[in-house]
Amino acid sequence: MAGKIVECVPNFSEGRKPEVMEAVVDSVQKTEGVKLLDWSHDVNHNRMVVTFIGSPEAVIEGAVNSSKKAVELIDLNHHTGEHPRIGAVDVIPFVPVSGITLEECAQLAYQCGKRIYQELKLPVYYYEAAAKTPNRKNLSNVRNIGYEKLKVEVKTPERYPDEGEPQLHPTAGAVVIGARPFLVAFNINLHCSDIKIAKAIANRVREARGGLKNVKALGMELKDRGMVQVSMNLVNCDETPIYRVIELVKAEAKRYGVTAAETEIVGLVPLKYLTETAIYYMQLEGFKTEQILDTRL
Amino acid sequence: MAGKIVECVPNFSEGRKPEVMEAVVDSVQKTEGVKLLDWSHDVNHNRMVVTFIGSPEAVIEGAVNSSKKAVELIDLNHHTGEHPRIGAVDVIPFVPVSGITLEECAQLAYQCGKRIYQELKLPVYYYEAAAKTPNRKNLSNVRNIGYEKLKVEVKTPERYPDEGEPQLHPTAGAVVIGARPFLVAFNINLHCSDIKIAKAIANRVREARGGLKNVKALGMELKDRGMVQVSMNLVNCDETPIYRVIELVKAEAKRYGVTAAETEIVGLVPLKYLTETAIYYMQLEGFKTEQILDTRL
Repeated sequence: MAGKIVECVPNFSEGRKPEVMEAVVDSVQKTEGVKLLDWSHDVNHNRMVVTFIGSPEAVIEGAVNSSKKAVELIDLNHHTGEHPRIGAVDVIPFVPVSGITLEECAQLAYQCGKRIYQELKLPVYYYEAAAKTPNRKNLSNVRNIGYEKLKVEVKTPERYPDEGEPQLHPTAGAVVIGARPFLVAFNINLHCSDIKIAKAIANRVREARGGLKNVKALGMELKDRGMVQVSMNLVNCDETPIYRVIELVKAEAKRYGVTAAETEIVGLVPLKYLTETAIYYMQLEGFKTEQILDTRL
Repeated sequence: MAGKIVECVPNFSEGRKPEVMEAVVDSVQKTEGVKLLDWSHDVNHNRMVVTFIGSPEAVIEGAVNSSKKAVELIDLNHHTGEHPRIGAVDVIPFVPVSGITLEECAQLAYQCGKRIYQELKLPVYYYEAAAKTPNRKNLSNVRNIGYEKLKVEVKTPERYPDEGEPQLHPTAGAVVIGARPFLVAFNINLHCSDIKIAKAIANRVREARGGLKNVKALGMELKDRGMVQVSMNLVNCDETPIYRVIELVKAEAKRYGVTAAETEIVGLVPLKYLTETAIYYMQLEGFKTEQILDTRL
């Protein structure tokens, strides 16, 4: 657990042929120092997402190896699916987990992008924390044009790739590489069955409506439990920690006399976000991650 | 971080000769799979404490290797010091850190004890969670008699060792081996400068005076900060978690209108205890340690 840990979550444009998906996953699993956490696919989107972690060097290796396999096996000229995409390996985000900053992950994105252009002749666009221009910060600005249109428009200066010549790979298109914070899926269930209240709280808590930065929130019904839920995506817990979200939801619930029944973290969470929450509630001063015995091995 | 992690904290009867202490520490450091966390010595006690962690197999190896070195280099017949002791390697506690129970650590104590008797001819007493009889649960009952007296009394049935013949090793005496929970040193600083209040709270919180089980507490003055402190040792946070201690101290402080300024963890803490505290304050339901990304590598 010591040292720098990075998560990499590449998206590939194949969600139907098991032998192709397995070959791509296999190329990740065979990469030394990389731990495969998950992979899932969607037949309608014709798309696959692979999640793995490791040291900075290992995850770059895993990203390059799986991209190589995708370029070899996926031909975008024969690809159909509902999800917008521009490449066989479509998006590669690097995500800081431990001992590494978002800015360092942007540097990894550049290292990875340079290798992918040199070794696979895939043109590269950088997005989010790795974006070279403000209009490429948002992934959808770069990717939603789709492979077929980009084939032509890549020649216009505003669509020039950040790495490589303004010409797509004949079968594999282009790739969007970037760095973004870890996304935490976090829900708060309320002692209340009125969906209007959950929606009102969600609206006050989310960034889009004047709430907390980095918080996306929806009100949902948990019919089988007679409860409602504020269902959230926390897109940057370094800036906006989990405890602040909990406390604001509770404060907004108070005007209805509603209290929190329980919270849930769906899927994974980096240790640093959990530690920060413990530190807040315990009023813990001067605590360092290295004091956690388990991190010493 | 995955898998079973055990801490081992052997005490050796040498705190004056650097070359002996270094040779013992070196034997731990050379043990494969073991990570040395700390070692310290006390000249008046003529005693040294070494702390290391690793897999169950690795820590047994480290305990046996360092015991071997201590038996080779320390002669109790020439040992003086204020601290009670019965052996060159005096006490060996095994402490669960992650993925392992106290009961399993007691089994490790037995494995270690059998090897130490077989390989080094040191008679072994088991204590705390590894005690074979109730009167040996408490370390001081076993150890405070001292080497010189035990040489004679080992022949009386109530002093028979748990492993080996009723006869001490001619130079290295005997050893006490056991399993105990991790000890967390935890302080709560109060917005208050009256030491009487800190002492009154400490007395209500500690087990000895009708407070929480597994809590030892003292009131202290932090003169330079104009504050007082409830200074605690939490000897079993599996049974009595940190959050319960925080909440009881706050509840007892309330009668004086005193609030907590901050808390501190002195030294190390197992991840599980911190996670449990976060779970309580977040009202987190259904959370598993495996959801912490950093534990997956």
